[in-house]
Parts: sequence; structure tokens; C-alpha cells
Amino acid sequence: MKASKVTQRLYWDEALLAALKEDIPWEDVSANAVVPEDARGTADLIAKAEGVLAGLPVFCRTFELLDGSAAFTLLKEEGARVKAGDVILKLEGNMRAILSGERTALNFLQRMSGIATYTRTMAELLEGTGTLLLDTRKTTPLLRSFEKYAVTVGGGSNHRFNLSDGVLLKDNHIGAAGDVRQAIERARAYAPFVRKIEVEVETLEELSEAMEAGADIVMLDNMKGELLREAVRRAKGRVKTEISGNVTRENVKEYAALGVDYISSGALTHSAPILDLSLKHLKSI
Amino acid sequence: MKASKVTQRLYWDEALLAALKEDIPWEDVSANAVVPEDARGTADLIAKAEGVLAGLPVFCRTFELLDGSAAFTLLKEEGARVKAGDVILKLEGNMRAILSGERTALNFLQRMSGIATYTRTMAELLEGTGTLLLDTRKTTPLLRSFEKYAVTVGGGSNHRFNLSDGVLLKDNHIGAAGDVRQAIERARAYAPFVRKIEVEVETLEELSEAMEAGADIVMLDNMKGELLREAVRRAKGRVKTEISGNVTRENVKEYAALGVDYISSGALTHSAPILDLSLKHLKSI
Amino acid sequence: MKASKVTQRLYWDEALLAALKEDIPWEDVSANAVVPEDARGTADLIAKAEGVLAGLPVFCRTFELLDGSAAFTLLKEEGARVKAGDVILKLEGNMRAILSGERTALNFLQRMSGIATYTRTMAELLEGTGTLLLDTRKTTPLLRSFEKYAVTVGGGSNHRFNLSDGVLLKDNHIGAAGDVRQAIERARAYAPFVRKIEVEVETLEELSEAMEAGADIVMLDNMKGELLREAVRRAKGRVKTEISGNVTRENVKEYAALGVDYISSGALTHSAPILDLSLKHLKSI
Amino acid sequence: MKASKVTQRLYWDEALLAALKEDIPWEDVSANAVVPEDARGTADLIAKAEGVLAGLPVFCRTFELLDGSAAFTLLKEEGARVKAGDVILKLEGNMRAILSGERTALNFLQRMSGIATYTRTMAELLEGTGTLLLDTRKTTPLLRSFEKYAVTVGGGSNHRFNLSDGVLLKDNHIGAAGDVRQAIERARAYAPFVRKIEVEVETLEELSEAMEAGADIVMLDNMKGELLREAVRRAKGRVKTEISGNVTRENVKEYAALGVDYISSGALTHSAPILDLSLKHLKSI
Amino acid sequence: MKASKVTQRLYWDEALLAALKEDIPWEDVSANAVVPEDARGTADLIAKAEGVLAGLPVFCRTFELLDGSAAFTLLKEEGARVKAGDVILKLEGNMRAILSGERTALNFLQRMSGIATYTRTMAELLEGTGTLLLDTRKTTPLLRSFEKYAVTVGGGSNHRFNLSDGVLLKDNHIGAAGDVRQAIERARAYAPFVRKIEVEVETLEELSEAMEAGADIVMLDNMKGELLREAVRRAKGRVKTEISGNVTRENVKEYAALGVDYISSGALTHSAPILDLSLKHLKSI
Amino acid sequence: MKASKVTQRLYWDEALLAALKEDIPWEDVSANAVVPEDARGTADLIAKAEGVLAGLPVFCRTFELLDGSAAFTLLKEEGARVKAGDVILKLEGNMRAILSGERTALNFLQRMSGIATYTRTMAELLEGTGTLLLDTRKTTPLLRSFEKYAVTVGGGSNHRFNLSDGVLLKDNHIGAAGDVRQAIERARAYAPFVRKIEVEVETLEELSEAMEAGADIVMLDNMKGELLREAVRRAKGRVKTEISGNVTRENVKEYAALGVDYISSGALTHSAPILDLSLKHLKSI
Repeated sequence: MKASKVTQRLYWDEALLAALKEDIPWEDVSANAVVPEDARGTADLIAKAEGVLAGLPVFCRTFELLDGSAAFTLLKEEGARVKAGDVILKLEGNMRAILSGERTALNFLQRMSGIATYTRTMAELLEGTGTLLLDTRKTTPLLRSFEKYAVTVGGGSNHRFNLSDGVLLKDNHIGAAGDVRQAIERARAYAPFVRKIEVEVETLEELSEAMEAGADIVMLDNMKGELLREAVRRAKGRVKTEISGNVTRENVKEYAALGVDYISSGALTHSAPILDLSLKHLKSI
Repeated sequence: MKASKVTQRLYWDEALLAALKEDIPWEDVSANAVVPEDARGTADLIAKAEGVLAGLPVFCRTFELLDGSAAFTLLKEEGARVKAGDVILKLEGNMRAILSGERTALNFLQRMSGIATYTRTMAELLEGTGTLLLDTRKTTPLLRSFEKYAVTVGGGSNHRFNLSDGVLLKDNHIGAAGDVRQAIERARAYAPFVRKIEVEVETLEELSEAMEAGADIVMLDNMKGELLREAVRRAKGRVKTEISGNVTRENVKEYAALGVDYISSGALTHSAPILDLSLKHLKSI
Repeated sequence: MKASKVTQRLYWDEALLAALKEDIPWEDVSANAVVPEDARGTADLIAKAEGVLAGLPVFCRTFELLDGSAAFTLLKEEGARVKAGDVILKLEGNMRAILSGERTALNFLQRMSGIATYTRTMAELLEGTGTLLLDTRKTTPLLRSFEKYAVTVGGGSNHRFNLSDGVLLKDNHIGAAGDVRQAIERARAYAPFVRKIEVEVETLEELSEAMEAGADIVMLDNMKGELLREAVRRAKGRVKTEISGNVTRENVKEYAALGVDYISSGALTHSAPILDLSLKHLKSI
Repeated sequence: MKASKVTQRLYWDEALLAALKEDIPWEDVSANAVVPEDARGTADLIAKAEGVLAGLPVFCRTFELLDGSAAFTLLKEEGARVKAGDVILKLEGNMRAILSGERTALNFLQRMSGIATYTRTMAELLEGTGTLLLDTRKTTPLLRSFEKYAVTVGGGSNHRFNLSDGVLLKDNHIGAAGDVRQAIERARAYAPFVRKIEVEVETLEELSEAMEAGADIVMLDNMKGELLREAVRRAKGRVKTEISGNVTRENVKEYAALGVDYISSGALTHSAPILDLSLKHLKSI
Repeated sequence: MKASKVTQRLYWDEALLAALKEDIPWEDVSANAVVPEDARGTADLIAKAEGVLAGLPVFCRTFELLDGSAAFTLLKEEGARVKAGDVILKLEGNMRAILSGERTALNFLQRMSGIATYTRTMAELLEGTGTLLLDTRKTTPLLRSFEKYAVTVGGGSNHRFNLSDGVLLKDNHIGAAGDVRQAIERARAYAPFVRKIEVEVETLEELSEAMEAGADIVMLDNMKGELLREAVRRAKGRVKTEISGNVTRENVKEYAALGVDYISSGALTHSAPILDLSLKHLKSI
Repeated sequence: MKASKVTQRLYWDEALLAALKEDIPWEDVSANAVVPEDARGTADLIAKAEGVLAGLPVFCRTFELLDGSAAFTLLKEEGARVKAGDVILKLEGNMRAILSGERTALNFLQRMSGIATYTRTMAELLEGTGTLLLDTRKTTPLLRSFEKYAVTVGGGSNHRFNLSDGVLLKDNHIGAAGDVRQAIERARAYAPFVRKIEVEVETLEELSEAMEAGADIVMLDNMKGELLREAVRRAKGRVKTEISGNVTRENVKEYAALGVDYISSGALTHSAPILDLSLKHLKSI
């Protein structure tokens, strides 16, 4: 998925402006004290570690919002793998705006690239298996659209975006409804008909019940070893299967080998370390 | 620092509402489909790993914003150290609201507690040394006030909040001004007089220049070994000293041993792993 | 579907406040000129025509937002059928607030009830047929959530809420992709996996193509008579079928008799006449 | 009244953006899945029924907000009468933006043109009579400025915009004040002196009282036949007269024949059927 | 005019919150550092000069927005004249909230009371003359509703609130239209019929023209001495007259003696000195 | 301090738009009635009194926000002293936009220039004394950044911006803490380390205590004559000294002669009379 220009206009600009205001509630005293108002400069964005870039449009847009004259020469593309020392882009613009926007632009880019980097690692382990890697709703509050986008840049797919656009019936929902069948029937009667219905099952009996009631996806929760293998076997061709939680580099290929359709991982967004990047070689021109 | 009720009213409610809207753009289809509108329930917040709690008022407030009748029994306090299995609090309220708010409340609490946990580890290494642990502006966009608060719960102190409330003159500023002395003079002439002026120095000459020009704090950048030791020695009693960057459990005590006043670390906010927490035992009542 | 309290808190209050500001940019000069500030009064909400009520919580909330002391005695329930002259509810509160909120509250309630009334008429024609009545995205700008809710009160179901939560591939999308199969494949690769994929087909060949490519729903566009009958027959049990556009009281039962799964109608929201309601018997107490 | 560019800049852009966000909470999955990011296309806006156009600047602006490169060739002007099949304008721009903005742009234009069409029909019946056709405050919440503008395009005039910019004393206000005279006096003492004062009267006595107390306009409420004729006769030259409610094609000319100054009709905004319009012939270029 | 509770709820709360955020972008460091979180206190609001109070509801509401438990004992009423040393009210509440809200609450109250004080002085000079004192649109940006309200508390009346709710044709408008008559006719044809039309005239000829064209009010601009006297005489009973600009304590009675209907003064809002007030005797309880 | 372009983009545009909306809640009826939509015109901004200009970028930006084609020829610069009759700038643009923006633009400029003018007078009295003139937080709510900027244009310096970016411990804080020393210690432990700590002292004992506890600045409150002289003498070289309140043209030089470092005055922002300016010679072109 590429960053949509419509999304950029309708949402990201607003978030970037809010982030800039958070960092500049009145003015950048340091820059404004020492740098002449109309000084122009150039700078290089440098990778300080190996990883996958996500968020270059966000990075550039941050400076544009402060300075209509900012210009960029991209040496690496969105989604590219970089290594320490690589020059990613060259930035030219008003010197004060470069200094004032630097931290905010990097705070976005480092996090997004961190997510893409970690996702790429996991996604590559699944290549050729037919199993898809999914994210979750365990994203940073207020940054979900940036983070879910970064997951797609890294090669993962997006699970539902929010509580309104997909149905996922967990043990609590099933308990409230009585049993798996009743939960699915209530959801089908209630939800807009374009919503898919996913249901968590813990036993083979629940799996049968879910398939009979017409679930679109089953999440095989807490199943392990032979039980899990049997569940996937029975579901094959009748309902999509998903495994979630505690996915590691070690176990991800084993799960895929069982033939499960989806593996979802909250860690893609809540535990990816940032990718170290830096703005260097600032020079006045 | 404790979370101020005024901050809560003026800022956090707004951020929590925005985060809830991000996750619930229209309604929680799953909960609303299967749970009766007026069902009430209870649930326990459980620690699934060892760590330090930060964000309990934020966690509770998230549910209150959805449900005026939500009530909480706290078994652990803000700032407490918990271990896996500990029950942190008991929540009672409207069942739909519990299900709808769960993910957003946890997304805040897990991140804030992760920051407090990591900060506590580092701060404890500095106990008794006279060196203070500081955060940076490398925070998650839009969440700075939550994260800087979490740092204080963990035992760290806050560096400047933003580009307006403190002056920090780095190499680029110094370059633009000509030299260290001129940069400091321009800053003093420009900045509101209550701002402290911090300046990055890389050599003993720059250190002298900064002290003579009346800097309040010097950041000793890229100094190592004997040079660093000498710089701290010369600064002692004349100007506060700060070291920043790549601070690890291993080197933090060494730096403190030199007698440096402040050690700042971006990792406190950008690389603290989340603390694993979970809402369990949801029961209708 | 009942109006969710969470939706009310997160969205509707905001819209009601904005609508009140639209009608009261500074103050209600007429009421404030002649009515004492603390005068209290009662009034009756009366039906002036036959129809179905939708929006009572919205109506009441409008007054509550102006006046915390407003109280209501409901004589008719949300979704009830009323006839001219019926007293729907009795309102008591600050007299100025009653006068100031009256028009805004009625503007919402009359439109929502108009939609519910028209939807009920159409939905009743489909009772017992197994065909579901759906709305569309042809809603009043900024009022979609109110109108889609009114449709459910009237006995209809909601199609997708917006362009993000469901895939609907029309002739233009198919043209851009090359053919039906390629359009579906691109959508499946691109869209979050919880999205259902609906595709417009105009011939039996396209229908086959869509079914083979795994569409979840087909919209049978511009098909009539025998062709339509054959298309529904072939789709039965393999893919859901939808008919849209120019649905009238006359033809809706014929479509249903064909066994089509869904009939969608923009008229539910864009052409339902308002239900005439009035606030009467205002008396000071 | 033509749409003011200042109104557009200060208000309409904001409403259009909010409406676009309502329809695109994250992205247009269908368009983004199948249409290349930089594809350009053209399309025609076609009338599918006879009517009067209102809202062309709004229609065009909707696409401009998504796509700075959108361009328009207008074949029909704002306020023009069109018939089924007429090409109204040709649109060229980014293909994704055309698909993403289509529904929102049409939802505005169809409603506004529906209002203009219905208003034109009524206004034409009053041509040459000296009686002016007015709208009311029975507008769609949040869309008042669009709808009142559409009324003027259709040839109607605007009554007061809101509760702050005109005084209208109805039976409840008069009851609260004691009698017509006292109500008018209190209003004159209270309201900013540029406000005109209108008062509802039901008898000839009240009419006299209103004229003596210096009302600017009287609304002749519930008066019929000879009583109404006499009231208009007495008011002539001394105070402006208005008739409101249940205005139909049939009775409007009769009222005008009496010599009444203004006839106001809520139906202009709350019951005008939409004008059927469509975006056709989308082609990539 | 008393402050309407509806205005308070719809507008003033929002402005007060924005003002509090302006003064407390994150927290009150001083108060939070030294005052325990739950300490409660009392304080007295004291007049330090003679004047008229306006804004007490605004003053109190500022503290309530920070602290739901704030309570007030009013010893002086809105509109009362106070002298130096008078205790105006006693405030009790959370100590931190008292300290944090003090400056913002006083900044509003001092300005509003300054306006009321100055207005009262001028209004008293006009008592018994039949001439009304009006404000203008020369108000502080963003504070118009507070300032226009303060004018009414001081005994003045409000001229139009903004450019939308009254027509005032000045020399530039007249020039654009051709002459006074044409300007008035265009305005009557264009403006919603509830708007009064005021026109600036500079000669007796223009005055005649304005009266013949049906102006509601004439502003006698730059007229002095005998010319002014004659203009007022001719206008008497046919059109309302207004004088504006450079109104002083000295000339205001002379103007009134001519029998002019309205005297408007920008100085009421743009040059009223603040009324000195202070929060004293803060004590913990 | 010059107005930063970043501040303009992030904050002032927003405030200017809100102020324009306050004055134009829907449209400028007068201008739109008589001036053709595309008419263009020129006008001159004229000084009607002697003073110092502050806010020219704000003045110009107001028109630009209404009319992208507005253009300006500056004959006087920001900070320049003007006398009655001077032409400050020539404006060319859409005629309606000139008329619609005039009042808002002048309301800003007159207030800001009034502040700069008054500040300049006071600042000139301090020239060569080594004492700095400071503003306070007694600014107009919602306009602090405009007013503090105007102070700098006038030659004053800014004290803290808000309650978050500087610590000022007054008698109430000291009372709550126990004594001066404890208050300072608590503040130092609590506040972000870049905050300077200022403390109010009333006696020489408190002064000593404050210096020993390491205050950065002392405010010498209520000290007069010999006591004040002695306090300044003792503080010299050890802590910065500030005097606040009731600063007049008469006493300001005396205070400076004592050698105090800072004199702060609320009157700079709350009591500066506006500078009379006017838009003249509007001509169509």
C-alpha cells in the first residue's frame, strides 16, 4: 500500500500540524535567536542503522508545512532497505524551518521506519508459505493510520482498522451471547452486511459450531501442537484461520507450516524498535 | 511529579477522546451486537510482566469518558512496582463500555508503564550519585505530555518540554552565530529572560568560551575518556554539565562517577518496550 | 439497532452542539427579551401526521445540552408508529432553553422520523421474503450517522458506512483494472482482509467471472426481466446478490420474488419526506 | 445572492472537508486498490431530470480540496435550468480523487439543486405580484448556509438566519410577556437596535396592538378568508405582513392576491426532492 | 442585558478553556511544586479602585472549569458599583486550581469591568435625554461577545454584532453603488428582509435621498453645528439618526441635546482602562 | 524579536481566521449587496496619531486570508515611529475583501501598535541604564502571543509566557511551602531543570534566604526607599532583581538608578491606549 494523497490531505496534514504545535507552542527560541530570518540551508538525512524506510512523505511534508519553499532530492525510496551511512535524501529550505521541524519530522520517520523494518523481517520469514502477516489494534493512540501504513510498507497486511469496521467475537462476547452460534447469529443480524465476522474458538467443538454458523474467519486461540494442527486441517477450505499473539521469529515459520491463513502480531506496532536516523551536514547556502 | 488534575481537564481528556474516536469511528459493532445495552460487568486489570505502573488515572479516565458510572478499586498505586499476575485494579461499569474502551485504555497504560519501567531501571543505577536522569524531545508525536509524565513516575526528570521553553544551542546554531560566545549572547538578548541557556561544546576551548559567556548548562558532546573527565572537572561549580546519547545500563554509572550533573536519554521514551498488561475476568453482574 | 450511548457521547453531542451554534450564534434575542431567566415551563411533543419515530434520544439530548435540568416523560418509544394528534413526550425545563432549542431539536427529529417512516413502509413490503432492505451512501453530508441509524429504526439494514469500510467495484474500477477478475484480485491484495468485496456486473459472463474470482457480493446492475432472473438463479448459494436504484413500492416485491438477497435504495435517505411534528402547549410552571 | 468567496473561504471549505472525512475516514479502498496513483481522467456531470442548478461552486470545490490539479469546464451556469441529458460540466483531474469525491460532491449538489428547483417553481408563481417568497429556519442541521444560499439561487429570499439576528415573537413569547404590546416593548428595549421586530398576531385586535407598539413585521397566523383579507388591508402601508406554513402551489397565488408582503415556506428546505444528477463517462486520459 | 446561560454553555466555556490553555500549556509548575494536590483554600476578590462590575459569571466559571468543587459567596452583584477595598466575592476551592486560574479569571474580569465602568459614566450623562449610547465593532478580536455584554451591563446598548446581521452603507459602499439611493435599493434587494439598513450621509441632500429611499437609520457623518442641527430636525420622525466617533464626556450631552437618537462610541470597548481588582487573603483551610 | 514565520503559520493564521469569523459569521451583507464580486480596489493605511507600528504582518495577513490576490506596498516598517497623516502602506485587492477585512485587520493593528507605542516610551526612559523593561501575564485573554510580540517591537522584553515555562513563587506559594527556602527547594526538585526559579521577597531576611537557597531571580515586592536600595545592593552579582507593579513614567528612572535588573509592568499590555489608524482613499481600479 502506498500512502494515499487523499489521506495525506484529509488527515496527515492535521496530525503533522498538531505535532509541530506540540513541539513549538510559540516559537523555536534557539533558532530564531541565532539564525537570520531568511537564511537558507541544506541538510542530509542519513541512516545510522540498517532498516526499511517508511514515512518519507510524512518527513518531507513536515518541513513543507513550516516552509513552502522546502525542496527534497530523494536518493532512497519509500520501502527501500538502507544501511548505516546511506544518504536517504537531501533537503533544502529556510534554515530556521529546517531546525524547527527536524525533531518532529524525525520522530515520525524513526517510528514508522522502525515498524516497517521489524515487519519486513517477519514478513520475509513467511514468504512463499501462503500465510499472511497481519497487524492488530495495539497501535500508539492517535497514530494508528501512520503505523498501519508502515506495516504495509514493511510487507504486512492490515487487520481491521477499528471497532466499527470488522466484527471480532472474543470469549466475552460469546459468553454474553450464550454460545458461539448465538454470538455469530446476533452479529450477522446486527452488523452492516459488508462486515466479515471473525470468532475466537478454543476447542474443536467451538470450531465446528463457528463453521456451521457461517463465521468468515476463526481465531484459533490458545491452541497448540496436535490440537492446532487438527483445527487448521478441519477449517481448510471452509473458513479462514488466524493465529495471534506471542509471535516470534522462531515460531512464525512453524505456524505457517501448519497452513494457517493469517498470523497477527501486536508487536509489529507496539514493540518495534525505532530505526536510528539523523539529519546531518546542515550548511547555509 | 504527579499527574495534575488541571492538566487532565485541560489536555488529557481531549487526547483520550480523540484516541477513542480513532478506535470507534461509529460504534463497537461486536459489543453492541451481542451485549445488552444496560448490562453491567466487572473486570480485573492484571500485570503479565514485572514493571512500574504509570498511567492509572489515564486508564480509568478512558472508561469514565465512555461511561459515567464506571467505578474503580485500586489495588496498586501509580508508580508501584508490579509482578506478573498481580491484580492492579478492579473495574465495574457498563459492559459495552468496558469492551469498547479496553484496547484504547490499555494502549495508553502499556506504553506509559513501559516508559516508567525502563526509566526506573536507569534511575536506580544513578541513585546516590548526584547525577540526574533526564528525558529528551524524542517522544511519540502527540503524546509528549503523557510520556514526559511517565518519565517522572519512573524517577527521571524532564528536560525542556519543547522548542519554546528552553534554549539549546547546538553546532548548527553556533555555526550560524559564528562562535559559542556570539551564539550565547544572541540567545540571551533574544530569549525571554526566564529561559536557561544550554550550549553544546566539543572542546575544552568551547567549554571555556561557554562559561565565560555565561551559559547555564553545557552539553558535553562527543567527549570521551580523559577529555570528558577534564571538562567535567573544569565545569564543576561554574556551569551545569549534561551528557546525552547512547546511554546504556553499562555506561550510565561510569558517566555519573565523573560527576556530571545530568544524563539525558532519548531511549527512555523512544525505545522502552511496553509493559504487558491485560484486562481479564470480565463477568456480567 | 438501538442508538449506542458510546456513539452519543463520542459523536452526537458534538453534532448537536454545532447545530445549536448554527441556530444561536450569540443568543436567542426573542426568548431572552421576554422570558425571565429562571422561568420554568412544560411542553408537549405532538405528532401532526402518521409515521414512525426515530431520534427521540437526539431530540431530548438537544435540550439537555442547553439546560442540565431538562426532564422528559416519554409516552411513545423510539421506533413506535404514531398518528396525528398523539402526544409523544412531555418536556419540562427552563423556559428560555425550551424556546431556544425547539427548532434544532425538531429539525433533527423530523428528518430522522421521516427516514424511519419511509423505510418502514418499504421494509414491510419485504417482510417474509428473505430479502433485506439496505440504505446507500446518498445521505445528507455531515448527518450520515443520524440517517443510517434512522434507517435501522425503520427496519432497514445498513450498507457500508463509507469508502474505507467496504469495497465496491463499479464499472469505472473494473475498467481501470482491465476486467472483473483483475479488479477483484487487486482489491483482495490491497484491502484489509476483513473487508468484503462487492462487484457490479452487467452480464452473465461478468457474473461468472466475479464468482470465480471470489467476490463476496455481486450487484446486478441494469439487469432486467429474464436476464436478472437467470443471474439470481446462478448466483444462489455461491455469492450474495444485490439490486440497487429506482426501487419503488411497486417493483420492490417483484425483485424480492426473484430471490435476490439485498435491495438497496438511496431514496430512503435522500427522498424521505419529513414527519410533521410540533412542540405544543408550552406553559410556564 | 451569489455565493460569496469570503463565505467559501471562511465556512464552506471547512464543511466540505468534514463531509469528505465522513465519507473517507481513512482512504477509498476501492479506488486505491485498482486505480494507479497518478492516473488522470475526465468525467461529465449530467442532469438526469429537469431542474435548477445550485451548488456548482460547492461541487467543484469538493474535488479541488482532494486534488489541487482538478479543472472544470462549465457548460451550464449556477441558477440555470437544465433538462434530463444536459451536460452541466466537464471535470478533469486525478482519477482516484474523482472517484473518491464523487459521492460527497453529488450529495451536496443534488440537495442544493433540489431546493433551488422547488423554490423556482414557487417563486415563479409569485412573479409580478409584489409578494416575496421566504425560507424559514426549518433547514437541515449543519447545512443552513448551503440551503439558504440555494433558496436565493432559486429566486426566493432569506428570512432571518438564526435566533440572534432577528426578533420573532410568537404566542409563547407574547404569553410570557403578558400581551403583544408588552412583548414588543421588551424586545425593543432588549435587542440590538438594528434588529427588526416581527410579531405573530391571531386577531385584528392583536394586529392593532402590534402596529401601535411599532412592530416592523406582523405574521398573520391562522388567519383565513375574510379575516385575513381585512388584516392585510389594515396593515397595508403601516406594517409589513407575512403569511407562513402549508404554502402550496395551489394557495400561494391566492395569498399573493391579498397583497401580503411575504410568504414563508419551510417546505423550500425541508421537503424539496433532490434533483437527480450523475457523474458519467469517466475515462482515463 | 444579562449574560444568557445558553450563551455561556455554547460559547463562553469554550473561550475560557482556550484562555486557560493559553496560560497553562502543560501545568502550573509553581503551584504544583509547592502546594499539595488536595489542599483546599479560600480567597477574597477585592476591588482596588472605584468602578462597575461586569463578568462575575465569567470569573467564577473560570475556576469551575478547573475545579468542579469551587464555590462562591457573592457580596456584590453583576453591574454593582464598587469602591476600593470592597470585598466582591469569597471563593473556596482546590488551592492549586485557585492559583492556576487566578490570572486568567482576573484578565477577563478586569477588562469587562473596565468597559462597564467607562460605559456607565457615559450612559449616565445621557440619562433622561432620550438618546441611546451604542457600542461599535471596534472590539478586541475574539472577545466581542464578552465586550458587547459588558457594554450592556454598563448601561449601553449594542449596535450590530457583525457584518452579517446589519447593513451599514458607508461612503465606499455608496461610491460603489453610484449614489445613496442606489446603494439603499441594492441593499434592500440583497439583504435578508429582517435586516435594518443604515446609511452614512454627509449632506442634507444625501439625507433627503436616504429618507426617500427608505433607510431605517442615518449616520450623520462629519456634520457639525448648524448643519447637524438641521439634519436632525429634518430626520425627526422619519428616520432614526446616529452620531459616531470622538465622543467625549464633554460633547456627549451637546449631541443629545440636538435630539439625535443614537450616539455610538468605539472608545467604550477599545479605550476603557481596566478596573483594578485583586485576589487576596488566600488561606488554606 | 521579529514575528517568526513559523509562529505565523502555526498560530496566527488560526487566530486571524477565528477573528474574521467572529466579524463575518456568514457574509458581509453591505459589501456584497453593493460591490460587484470581482471589483478590485486600492486603499491607504494612514496614521491618525503619533506612535510605533506593531502588527503590520498581521494586518496584511488578514486580507490575504480573505483574498489570495491581495498585495501590499509598505512605506513604513514594523517598529517604525509614525506621525499623524503618514501613509503606512498601500493595499490592492478584491474590493469586497478589503471592505470585509478592514475592521478585523485594524482591530489587531491598533491594539498591537498601542502596546508598542506605550512600551517604546517606557523603554526609552530606561535606555543606557542597564535595566530591562519586562511585560507580565496581564495580557488580553487569547491574544497573549500578539501582545508579547508587540512588547518586543516596542523595545521591551518578555517575562515568562505562561505558568508552565517559568517558576514564580509568590507569598501564597511560600506560605504553602513553609518558608522561602523550602519553596525554592520544592520547586527545584519538581520543575523541569531548564526552568529558572524566581521568588518574591519582602524583607532582607527573605532575600538572604532566597539567595542561599539558590533562586535565580528575586522579585522585590513592596520594598521602598532605603530598604529597596539595600536589597538591590545585597543582591548585586548574586541574584537578578526585579521590581513590578505601578510603574510610571515618573518612577521608572528612579528604580533604574538603584541598579535593579528588571522592571516589569502589566500596564504595557493592559492599559496601553490604542494607536489611531485608518484605512482611507478606497478607490476602485
